[in-house]
Amino acid sequence: MRNVILDCDPGHDDAISIIIGASKRSALNILGITTVAGNVEVEKNTVNALKVSELIGLDVPVVEGAVHPLVRESEIAPEIHGETGMDGPVLKDPAKEKTPGHAVDFIIGQVKNSDGKVTLVPTGPLTNIALALIKEPSIKDNIDEIVLMGGGTFGNWTPAAEFNIYVDAEAAKVVYESGLPVTMFGLDVTHQVIADTAVIDRVGKIENDIAVFVKELLVFFAETYKDHFGFPGGPIHDACTTMYLINPEMFTFEDVNVTIETKGEATYGMTVVDLLKTTGRPENVKFATGVDTETFWNIFQDVLVSYGESDE
Amino acid sequence: MRNVILDCDPGHDDAISIIIGASKRSALNILGITTVAGNVEVEKNTVNALKVSELIGLDVPVVEGAVHPLVRESEIAPEIHGETGMDGPVLKDPAKEKTPGHAVDFIIGQVKNSDGKVTLVPTGPLTNIALALIKEPSIKDNIDEIVLMGGGTFGNWTPAAEFNIYVDAEAAKVVYESGLPVTMFGLDVTHQVIADTAVIDRVGKIENDIAVFVKELLVFFAETYKDHFGFPGGPIHDACTTMYLINPEMFTFEDVNVTIETKGEATYGMTVVDLLKTTGRPENVKFATGVDTETFWNIFQDVLVSYGESDE
Amino acid sequence: MRNVILDCDPGHDDAISIIIGASKRSALNILGITTVAGNVEVEKNTVNALKVSELIGLDVPVVEGAVHPLVRESEIAPEIHGETGMDGPVLKDPAKEKTPGHAVDFIIGQVKNSDGKVTLVPTGPLTNIALALIKEPSIKDNIDEIVLMGGGTFGNWTPAAEFNIYVDAEAAKVVYESGLPVTMFGLDVTHQVIADTAVIDRVGKIENDIAVFVKELLVFFAETYKDHFGFPGGPIHDACTTMYLINPEMFTFEDVNVTIETKGEATYGMTVVDLLKTTGRPENVKFATGVDTETFWNIFQDVLVSYGESDE
Amino acid sequence: MRNVILDCDPGHDDAISIIIGASKRSALNILGITTVAGNVEVEKNTVNALKVSELIGLDVPVVEGAVHPLVRESEIAPEIHGETGMDGPVLKDPAKEKTPGHAVDFIIGQVKNSDGKVTLVPTGPLTNIALALIKEPSIKDNIDEIVLMGGGTFGNWTPAAEFNIYVDAEAAKVVYESGLPVTMFGLDVTHQVIADTAVIDRVGKIENDIAVFVKELLVFFAETYKDHFGFPGGPIHDACTTMYLINPEMFTFEDVNVTIETKGEATYGMTVVDLLKTTGRPENVKFATGVDTETFWNIFQDVLVSYGESDE
Repeated sequence: MRNVILDCDPGHDDAISIIIGASKRSALNILGITTVAGNVEVEKNTVNALKVSELIGLDVPVVEGAVHPLVRESEIAPEIHGETGMDGPVLKDPAKEKTPGHAVDFIIGQVKNSDGKVTLVPTGPLTNIALALIKEPSIKDNIDEIVLMGGGTFGNWTPAAEFNIYVDAEAAKVVYESGLPVTMFGLDVTHQVIADTAVIDRVGKIENDIAVFVKELLVFFAETYKDHFGFPGGPIHDACTTMYLINPEMFTFEDVNVTIETKGEATYGMTVVDLLKTTGRPENVKFATGVDTETFWNIFQDVLVSYGESDE
Repeated sequence: MRNVILDCDPGHDDAISIIIGASKRSALNILGITTVAGNVEVEKNTVNALKVSELIGLDVPVVEGAVHPLVRESEIAPEIHGETGMDGPVLKDPAKEKTPGHAVDFIIGQVKNSDGKVTLVPTGPLTNIALALIKEPSIKDNIDEIVLMGGGTFGNWTPAAEFNIYVDAEAAKVVYESGLPVTMFGLDVTHQVIADTAVIDRVGKIENDIAVFVKELLVFFAETYKDHFGFPGGPIHDACTTMYLINPEMFTFEDVNVTIETKGEATYGMTVVDLLKTTGRPENVKFATGVDTETFWNIFQDVLVSYGESDE
Repeated sequence: MRNVILDCDPGHDDAISIIIGASKRSALNILGITTVAGNVEVEKNTVNALKVSELIGLDVPVVEGAVHPLVRESEIAPEIHGETGMDGPVLKDPAKEKTPGHAVDFIIGQVKNSDGKVTLVPTGPLTNIALALIKEPSIKDNIDEIVLMGGGTFGNWTPAAEFNIYVDAEAAKVVYESGLPVTMFGLDVTHQVIADTAVIDRVGKIENDIAVFVKELLVFFAETYKDHFGFPGGPIHDACTTMYLINPEMFTFEDVNVTIETKGEATYGMTVVDLLKTTGRPENVKFATGVDTETFWNIFQDVLVSYGESDE
Repeated sequence: MRNVILDCDPGHDDAISIIIGASKRSALNILGITTVAGNVEVEKNTVNALKVSELIGLDVPVVEGAVHPLVRESEIAPEIHGETGMDGPVLKDPAKEKTPGHAVDFIIGQVKNSDGKVTLVPTGPLTNIALALIKEPSIKDNIDEIVLMGGGTFGNWTPAAEFNIYVDAEAAKVVYESGLPVTMFGLDVTHQVIADTAVIDRVGKIENDIAVFVKELLVFFAETYKDHFGFPGGPIHDACTTMYLINPEMFTFEDVNVTIETKGEATYGMTVVDLLKTTGRPENVKFATGVDTETFWNIFQDVLVSYGESDE
């Protein structure tokens, strides 16, 4: 089984990503969940991660990480995810407690001490991952892939920048220039997996607590995406990462150079994707360009159904 | 008839744009052609403009303009357009001579003294237009529209920047922030009008000197676009501007805010197009998003055919 | 006699600079005065230039230039120079009228057509000079020196930038990178020539209209510099340029590389002076580091006294 | 006694700073020495810190820190400090070993757990300090002052930037914007404490091992400063920090706003010091402008002499 650490800021789509990653279908060895400031404050993200892991019976450490980005001030997005960062469904306060220590040290320790290499799966700002790489560069030898949601050839927080990368572009620069294999799910592909009414209806027919929870997430998320972007539903961005770990074949990729813009006035936080190979810079990213959406939603359904089975 | 000034750096697609604009079909009052450093050095662009206007019998002033961009060093693209800037067809040296004076003063003079407003149609770097606006801001009152080829949501010279804007992003900033109505044909739409083998064959069937000349341009251009970008033919970018002046209805547009990035390291010269309205900045650009290509190529054919008729 | 064009935005110290440059003591062939937006709007600067030249009987063209900087929005400094740009003394409206045409064309024409080379003496933002160099690069062959007031190793408008350079840093970049010999009087030296009470008293003892006018300028200027910077008087920055043309020996210089910062957030418009030769970039500026202030004020006094003599 | 952590990259002047700080004269409670990549690679800096502390009998933990800056590539200065980072004197390999763990965690732990507040004294790039503040922002409550060597109104590594700040300007931005009291010894003051022949002679007359070692450091440092900058000796930059902890009164200060430039092309890493209060931004730095050099060198002599006494 593949060792993974889910580094996230749940977050509706982060929560769904965790649910997918923890399902039987995924067959991942989840070493732990680390949280980071992003959609909302890190403390709230930690509570949400605890709630979700308790709901699905995922018994792994949840370790809190960076309170704010490397260099810039924090920026959060309650208008998309609500005050709690996971508005919509109401879960009871978790009995589970966060594991003491800092996410950065947890990541470093797990990577150093695991049998076999570790895959990092960041679905929030890249602050924790960057901090781990800065503090202990030697961990690179034991990371086999960074599978992340972020960026794209266009933005959603500014015209040029996607939220996760924008919030901590300096951290993104550290990660993208680390020399590690980066598999990138940016808006180009995540905007292809919009949970519209048809998807929500499909989820609504699945009768288990987790599917009910996911449905409520999707309903809330659809609402904010309609209001802010005029979309027919919420793109479940982060879920692409764990869906990829289940079934990489449903995605198409191009190997490209991606540079992080940290100086631009109107382009700060842009992932500059060299699709036309104009720069001559070496390829450092496996960039997701498309997805077979039929397969995607079928597997998504299977995953949610499987939670009902696992209750038996 | 609409007063227009064609400001260009011919250039294969500039040449085609002139041919379209000067055709009977267009019914434009072309006040003159001004040239600018761009695809190649301005002197070569002027010779090319003279050759083309002589070939098609367009009897208007050709006035040379800026030798280099406002602030940056020159950058040229002989790998796309050949050493002469219009490699492929061989035209004899023009008898026609350039009109004395500077393009900037020609533009200012024509705009100030024409009956009715003037439309500027820049298809090269925006240096001349910016210089005219800086030198004589009052001309804004008599310009009704700037119809330009440049920029896009992605680039062709760098991953983020299109050649015309990249070469003189400071000039672009001046034009885009001028408050004048800008109609923008960027790569998003110009990459939809690729003169592939089918188009070239169609042009090849038209029997007049100008169609022959255009065919030779397209053949050369297709070659360089295959080599550099793997495209099935050359996009006749600049031609979108004059095609729009013939028939605006074949294009679709969105009113958006566009900001020019002049500070970024990897994004210098990007036209940051706010399609998702994330910035709240006012709309300053009518941005072409699509084109009915069937109509486009039909009109294109008609235009070339009409030159045969006009010879009679 | 040396051919000079005074390009300015009078301005208290610009006015004094003109008075010095036009004095018998200078023996300059002043081809004309050109004005630029700077301390206040260009129209006001033109009126001030007309007033001053009328007052001192300087019969040369006064030609109005750029209304705003190349790329940025205008920024003016009425808090330093008052609403008129030359508050303090009251001069009657000038009978003299500005010469038609644009400063840029005047500069180009004079440089091209003068017997012998021309020295440009800009004491405001460098917009006109940059525009002339952009529009007609060939004039470089006939310019022997650019003697300017601007910049320094520290700033007065921001911590890093002096007003003239800050207002149009892109223009400054064009001028400094032009390859022309630049003699630069920045704040390092201009803050050594402060017209304090002792200087004002000395001027007050000279009995001619022009000295009276200068005294009134100095009194007003001292007031604003006390208020804004806590200085004991106003530095007559711009006067260094024409004083240098009278007597270069009183200044000390270093040949250095100077780069103009146009990208920085807190340093936009800084003249980055490489005094310690850390960059290895070629020397492009003769940078004034010091002045023999005793000689400076003695000559200053002589100049003002000479105006009384010239009335006889 | 004041709790201090010396965070450094020894380095000739760092070594001297440690020697001063550890002297009886200082009466500091040194909690430990942390090292950072800077003058040379961090491993070499750690060895040098061990050598120096062994030489002077300073029995505190030496903990290694950041291998490279937060976001940028490493940059080192062997041309100033030699291959070992402390060329000149030859010390035997230290018996003392570095303390396990990371400097960042050592700093966080000491600050959290000390009786009374802690003063941080960074004399290298600010990477460790920034990492500690990013990882555990709550430590701010227990830091009373950051006394650092870095920056200035001019540079020594570029015309605008001093080495320590240039190497990791993002880290500097974190520290300067932390809200903590920063006492800053930049080049403005450190270039006033040049160990020229007179100083070296004075040190040469002191007969103890430590003075001999310091003399050898000064001789080597004088050589590189003559070669690179034409100075009459090496400025013992870093020593200002510990000399200030002995006797703050010998320095003069201004309370100012300092901003770190991280975007500029020619000004990256500049500490933009608002001496003229043009920005209106709040004061965040106590900026050293001058020093009573007579007192400085007298105390310096006393400190070195005291080491001979302490041997008895």
